[in-house]
Amino acid sequence: MVVSPNTARPAARTAFIGGTLIDGTGAVPLPDAAVVVANGRFEWVGSTQDLDRAQELRLVDVTGKFLIPGMMDANVHLVVHCDPDVLLRYEPGRYDELVVEAAQVALRAGITTVFDTWGPLEALRRVRDRINAGETTGSRIFLAGNIIGNGGPWSADFFPYGERLNPVVTEAVNAHWEQGVGADLTWMPAEDVRRAVRDYIAAGGIDFVKYASSAHAHLRFIALSPDAQRAIVEEAHAAGMTAQACALTTEALKLAIGAGVDLLQHGNSTGRHPMPQETVDLIAARQLPCVIMLYSERFLAAARADPGFPPNWAAPFETKSDNARRLIKAGAKILHATDGGVFGPTASDSPWVGALLRPPDSPARLGTSHIAWHQVMIEHGMTPMDALLTATRNIAQAYGKDHDLGTVEPGKRADLVVLDANPLDDPRHYERVVHVVKDGAVVDHRRLPLHPVLTQAGPTTGGAR
Amino acid sequence: MVVSPNTARPAARTAFIGGTLIDGTGAVPLPDAAVVVANGRFEWVGSTQDLDRAQELRLVDVTGKFLIPGMMDANVHLVVHCDPDVLLRYEPGRYDELVVEAAQVALRAGITTVFDTWGPLEALRRVRDRINAGETTGSRIFLAGNIIGNGGPWSADFFPYGERLNPVVTEAVNAHWEQGVGADLTWMPAEDVRRAVRDYIAAGGIDFVKYASSAHAHLRFIALSPDAQRAIVEEAHAAGMTAQACALTTEALKLAIGAGVDLLQHGNSTGRHPMPQETVDLIAARQLPCVIMLYSERFLAAARADPGFPPNWAAPFETKSDNARRLIKAGAKILHATDGGVFGPTASDSPWVGALLRPPDSPARLGTSHIAWHQVMIEHGMTPMDALLTATRNIAQAYGKDHDLGTVEPGKRADLVVLDANPLDDPRHYERVVHVVKDGAVVDHRRLPLHPVLTQAGPTTGGAR
Amino acid sequence: MVVSPNTARPAARTAFIGGTLIDGTGAVPLPDAAVVVANGRFEWVGSTQDLDRAQELRLVDVTGKFLIPGMMDANVHLVVHCDPDVLLRYEPGRYDELVVEAAQVALRAGITTVFDTWGPLEALRRVRDRINAGETTGSRIFLAGNIIGNGGPWSADFFPYGERLNPVVTEAVNAHWEQGVGADLTWMPAEDVRRAVRDYIAAGGIDFVKYASSAHAHLRFIALSPDAQRAIVEEAHAAGMTAQACALTTEALKLAIGAGVDLLQHGNSTGRHPMPQETVDLIAARQLPCVIMLYSERFLAAARADPGFPPNWAAPFETKSDNARRLIKAGAKILHATDGGVFGPTASDSPWVGALLRPPDSPARLGTSHIAWHQVMIEHGMTPMDALLTATRNIAQAYGKDHDLGTVEPGKRADLVVLDANPLDDPRHYERVVHVVKDGAVVDHRRLPLHPVLTQAGPTTGGAR
Amino acid sequence: MVVSPNTARPAARTAFIGGTLIDGTGAVPLPDAAVVVANGRFEWVGSTQDLDRAQELRLVDVTGKFLIPGMMDANVHLVVHCDPDVLLRYEPGRYDELVVEAAQVALRAGITTVFDTWGPLEALRRVRDRINAGETTGSRIFLAGNIIGNGGPWSADFFPYGERLNPVVTEAVNAHWEQGVGADLTWMPAEDVRRAVRDYIAAGGIDFVKYASSAHAHLRFIALSPDAQRAIVEEAHAAGMTAQACALTTEALKLAIGAGVDLLQHGNSTGRHPMPQETVDLIAARQLPCVIMLYSERFLAAARADPGFPPNWAAPFETKSDNARRLIKAGAKILHATDGGVFGPTASDSPWVGALLRPPDSPARLGTSHIAWHQVMIEHGMTPMDALLTATRNIAQAYGKDHDLGTVEPGKRADLVVLDANPLDDPRHYERVVHVVKDGAVVDHRRLPLHPVLTQAGPTTGGAR
Repeated sequence: MVVSPNTARPAARTAFIGGTLIDGTGAVPLPDAAVVVANGRFEWVGSTQDLDRAQELRLVDVTGKFLIPGMMDANVHLVVHCDPDVLLRYEPGRYDELVVEAAQVALRAGITTVFDTWGPLEALRRVRDRINAGETTGSRIFLAGNIIGNGGPWSADFFPYGERLNPVVTEAVNAHWEQGVGADLTWMPAEDVRRAVRDYIAAGGIDFVKYASSAHAHLRFIALSPDAQRAIVEEAHAAGMTAQACALTTEALKLAIGAGVDLLQHGNSTGRHPMPQETVDLIAARQLPCVIMLYSERFLAAARADPGFPPNWAAPFETKSDNARRLIKAGAKILHATDGGVFGPTASDSPWVGALLRPPDSPARLGTSHIAWHQVMIEHGMTPMDALLTATRNIAQAYGKDHDLGTVEPGKRADLVVLDANPLDDPRHYERVVHVVKDGAVVDHRRLPLHPVLTQAGPTTGGAR
Repeated sequence: MVVSPNTARPAARTAFIGGTLIDGTGAVPLPDAAVVVANGRFEWVGSTQDLDRAQELRLVDVTGKFLIPGMMDANVHLVVHCDPDVLLRYEPGRYDELVVEAAQVALRAGITTVFDTWGPLEALRRVRDRINAGETTGSRIFLAGNIIGNGGPWSADFFPYGERLNPVVTEAVNAHWEQGVGADLTWMPAEDVRRAVRDYIAAGGIDFVKYASSAHAHLRFIALSPDAQRAIVEEAHAAGMTAQACALTTEALKLAIGAGVDLLQHGNSTGRHPMPQETVDLIAARQLPCVIMLYSERFLAAARADPGFPPNWAAPFETKSDNARRLIKAGAKILHATDGGVFGPTASDSPWVGALLRPPDSPARLGTSHIAWHQVMIEHGMTPMDALLTATRNIAQAYGKDHDLGTVEPGKRADLVVLDANPLDDPRHYERVVHVVKDGAVVDHRRLPLHPVLTQAGPTTGGAR
Repeated sequence: MVVSPNTARPAARTAFIGGTLIDGTGAVPLPDAAVVVANGRFEWVGSTQDLDRAQELRLVDVTGKFLIPGMMDANVHLVVHCDPDVLLRYEPGRYDELVVEAAQVALRAGITTVFDTWGPLEALRRVRDRINAGETTGSRIFLAGNIIGNGGPWSADFFPYGERLNPVVTEAVNAHWEQGVGADLTWMPAEDVRRAVRDYIAAGGIDFVKYASSAHAHLRFIALSPDAQRAIVEEAHAAGMTAQACALTTEALKLAIGAGVDLLQHGNSTGRHPMPQETVDLIAARQLPCVIMLYSERFLAAARADPGFPPNWAAPFETKSDNARRLIKAGAKILHATDGGVFGPTASDSPWVGALLRPPDSPARLGTSHIAWHQVMIEHGMTPMDALLTATRNIAQAYGKDHDLGTVEPGKRADLVVLDANPLDDPRHYERVVHVVKDGAVVDHRRLPLHPVLTQAGPTTGGAR
Repeated sequence: MVVSPNTARPAARTAFIGGTLIDGTGAVPLPDAAVVVANGRFEWVGSTQDLDRAQELRLVDVTGKFLIPGMMDANVHLVVHCDPDVLLRYEPGRYDELVVEAAQVALRAGITTVFDTWGPLEALRRVRDRINAGETTGSRIFLAGNIIGNGGPWSADFFPYGERLNPVVTEAVNAHWEQGVGADLTWMPAEDVRRAVRDYIAAGGIDFVKYASSAHAHLRFIALSPDAQRAIVEEAHAAGMTAQACALTTEALKLAIGAGVDLLQHGNSTGRHPMPQETVDLIAARQLPCVIMLYSERFLAAARADPGFPPNWAAPFETKSDNARRLIKAGAKILHATDGGVFGPTASDSPWVGALLRPPDSPARLGTSHIAWHQVMIEHGMTPMDALLTATRNIAQAYGKDHDLGTVEPGKRADLVVLDANPLDDPRHYERVVHVVKDGAVVDHRRLPLHPVLTQAGPTTGGAR
């Protein structure tokens, strides 16, 4: 019954029986549960003893196992390793290969849905559509394209390789990300920003809108004015999309909230100054979905001892931790995210991203970093059950996808992960994936990624004799 | 009667008679005028024929000359050459020498009052007080200290020498500027910004408040949130000071206006996008004082051909020119400023400021650049009389100093410049200074600066055999 | 009779008749000449009237045309555009494509033999062998691999991209060039250098030996000691190879001559100091083959006005010119070379090589730069006939290939270029290529390169919508 | 009898009696010794019991103390902290202050003679002459001025601040060092080098000649050709001076030896490759004076863990250690040197020299680093007595000063250090200085330096309120 790397739809109903179901609603786990899947969706959920055996069923016995909804990541970058050895070598048509690999790395880990919040739009769109059409396998992708107001990967806003590289080539690479809503918008009057964003949305391809409330370049400043922020949110809503902001200071956060965003990225990042309690309380009171990113003590200790770790990165970690603790305590609606992607063996030598990857518990590795995230979150005062909801129901709700995704309930898309130990006992159990089911089909997850690109062994650049 | 380099008060009344008076009110020039000065102020102004000859008078015959109010510059930096060969060599007590030299270079040119909008507070304060006490001569100084929200000269916001120099030394140099209201404020909640600014004002020393609406680092972004901007303006006003903003994009400009500033610096700078007409009209309707900076065609042509001229500087020049033209046409209240300071012979080789100094009509040289400024302004549609007002009455009004300064009217401080040709005929006549009178005393302006520092001949760093 | 892109051998004898033959020996041109080719070699050369018409002959009438030996270039780099957008995009197996393209660009221009003096050994070897085996078309390649003692393209010796890129990737790219005889040899005792070079030669693949007498990094210093230089030359000779040196100062030149090299690269480059006359005379007296590189006045004028042209490059041009003039006058054995390669449309924006490519008469473009070279050489006092010999006979002799190559004489490989105007009248006529014959086969030169890589239109990195 | 900071000559004979004399000849220590000093020189040395008490004597009882010759350092840089905050702040006349301070720091530690091997010639010369004339106190200075063939401190050869600073200022600073024998000599024919060096010597001021056999920039390459090296040595010898070379590779070392140098600096530095045994043996057989520099294990461990320590510095330490051990074992004539100078409290934050100063046992601090040097040397197999000779007799001999300096023998200059514990028991006892005698006068060493410049407390650049 386990099917090919690609998701072959099983002929008829399948019932997963005998396992303990943690359905993503926050309900008490149901032992000896049965989950019936048909036509890619959950048809029936209940006790195994109540299962209607009259119907034709393919039974999958998962006695002793634990069933959770397909996991979600509220902030990934399927093309995130922006070093020239990656972006030039695989450029441009081959960015698709990177996206496919990353979507499969995620799926292998039981992350059935990812929200890509900054990447090369065309490649992401093509792969998203191919996965949705069943032409290839991988996590379900929703994508934002560019962070409106930011430049591309080699602009001053991110990894300034462009200072040394050919400016024509740099511009061509950046253009894959910028798509007409790049750094130039930070010069524009708000009404021009509105028009640029409207055109960007109208051009099609994106699923939701993300913009820069803070400047990424210095991890401070305000990138877009309050009027511009409001215009962006209005345009997103007019197009039926959610809008989110990247805000990295207390004031940028307030502006984003004031602009009416549906989701805060890096919601616990306020740089050198802690989040005012009134902002914490406001986020909690409004139940404004809030992505939190944290780091384990092991990671921080190793990072601080790493000569390549930028000293100014280390500074705001305590503030992040403190903000997170207070948001959790206040009952805010937290979302799980890694901000992660896929890296190959040479990435840990990268002068830019290496310092994030060398320490243990690296927070940026799609497919594994979610484990450390859960651990750290529990250390910060969250219950294991609430932590599970941050990676399932909460994300679906925040992105307006809860009619389809996020819980194991009849009528929803049948995304399911079967673990062989209880993740509520220990978040490391999220690694113990037995089955990954997406849209009702069991994925041959152990074979993923099918065509390793970055994750293949050896240096990206072959050597000499 | 011409007195020592320092300003010796004449014993009794002095009358300048026979010249043509352009009094800075915008009135038609008065031929054969008499200006009576007593106790450092104008006592009487009228036709020479109406002069009361009964009183004891020292007569200064200026027949054939032209009298104008002491000129003002709304934006100078008395310590602006921030290369290490200057800031390290003269550091720290010797910054005073730089300030004195610059104040004397200005005074020599007939600029009797300058507004220093970013500099090392302690040195500026000491020299201001010494000049006001008559212990040394120089332009009357009003000072802002730091641009609130910006770092010091070697921070990422300005000239990033700090990347290479000793960080402890860099921080010590920057601290002379930052004074507790530096870049850290861009991370703070608005209420913390308010407190920091309140403390800064309370510490004494400054005469007016300037803050960063735009980030200086990238000449875009918004440095301080609308709430923070409003808090700063409120604190300035509560302390009886004017508040001004540096705004370099259309949105930053709107925020500054919304925050209630009394003066816009770089009011014609909106980077790559022109100022919306509604903003032009708003500035004009409110008569919000607006400093404009422009460049001559000669300067621009040479700058663009200079290998060291940053390409991205050249880009916004057309926008600046267009904005200026529209502001003038709309009847905005324009202020003259050079943003200038004093440079020595090696400055034109500086990797940073050299590109601004090498072309002709360099806009940044205190003491000469105001001539080119007037020329360019007239080319942009301003009448010569209005141009004269930008450098006298308008500045006094904008800074709330019009009870004392800006025009030749009885009761005001007797700052007067005597030219030997009509500046309304040709702005180059502003160079033809015959007498500089400050606080009623004639300055021996040709001997200034008394102790040349940067302006002495030869390299700053002596050579080998 | 014109054959496919690849060189199909004609069935029997071919005679090129009626043209004027400039045979590369320095002899007076022979009008109405006949050149008979068989089995890839010249079989008979003489007057058309003396041609033995009894034999079976394919006649190619070249009346009114001019026949010269296949041209040679004594110093090319078939992979010379070392910017990351090239070396990463085409790395590693695809370097072969770059080599093939460059060999075909050369062949198209009538350059039938090139000596590659620094490049990625494996790719060069593979393509050389494929061309020699008739599997692809292109100039005949002889190769040196690395310049012994220098690092690879991204080492401190050449284009220090490595300062910013991933060090593992940098090392992997450099290794394609270094091959065990890189910069490490500059630390070694001479006997260790000898062993490393012996191993390098024994590993096979190279055709001749080139080493660094000067350091390339600063274009001064001495890279290898006199003992090390002698050891390298001895090892080359022991293996039956010629040895050459790159020498960029007067003393490095003397050391190379003292070490017994067979050929001097950049023989007219002595940096800021002119070559002593005794060295000029010594080179001439020994008839030591000496590659000269020069630049047209047009190039120099444009280069000096180019903001991106490194000022320190401009400095030694006068010395180069003066040295060349004196070497020519002294009767030295000059060799033609371009040091060139193939560049695409974005190369002129490269921060490194762009400054060499933007001016007219760029000296580094394989396939065209030889024309300007001939012009400049004649301006420096060489006769057109001697200039022709620098690009034919002299190179064959210098590299020990004159038994096979360099002249149109019976027994030699039949490499022939047919021009439709006399190159001795004007070197621009070298462009007017009618036929290119290599190893007796006429090449369909107009179709080259068969698979454009760098030379295809458009940016190397595709854009966005 | 202890005299003022400056060295006042005592009226008559002084006898130091009762101490144990280690006279610097290698002889067995003499207990209860008497050393009679008159007219600045040693007059008589023997057992106290043999002292002629008839003469008039000022007796200094040093019973229980240990007397050694004034110590020497074969390689110092009295101006070595080349960061802009030092070279610009104290430039140019004030370099003298730095030299005086450093000479006094050395003298305080009992180092009565230093050989400055690279520095600003004019300042060094002035201070040397003032000390010799008794106008100020300090170590006796012998100076080389520039390292012939190297650029100044901000050239590419040393600390490339010049990349960012004003080039005119950079050149002016470098000129203080270069003095016409800078980097330009690496382009010159050997005969031009000879002439430049002859002029340099003839200009006066220097005491000995030092040149660059290796390039300093990359710590490899050969800076000057064998002919040029020989010319320099010949010119030095013709002027009656010793010649020394800085050689950092095995081949550069061989060239320097071949050129006939009198002294090898960094004689144990051969970079990545160990010194061939034949070179070790040659140096030993010729008794060619050889300065060795080594590092303690504590230093190396801390340096390797210091993020700012350049990885490529760490690499050659093992080779240095191994070379030193073999030179010692072979019986080479080793000289002590620190390559050190004086640093202030901010120096440890310097991006360049900080990494050498932060670890314990920093090797570069004049006045203390000699202690660690002795310790390390003993760990490498040297006897304590031989170690003492490296810092006294050997240096005097190597520099041709043994008629005057280096041992406590009648007729020599009376430089003497009195320690209160036996330095042969533990090199840390070199710190326990009781008296410093120079030219027969006791120095008030505890008051040195008289006018602290770099060594004063606090940052070099005063702060803000």
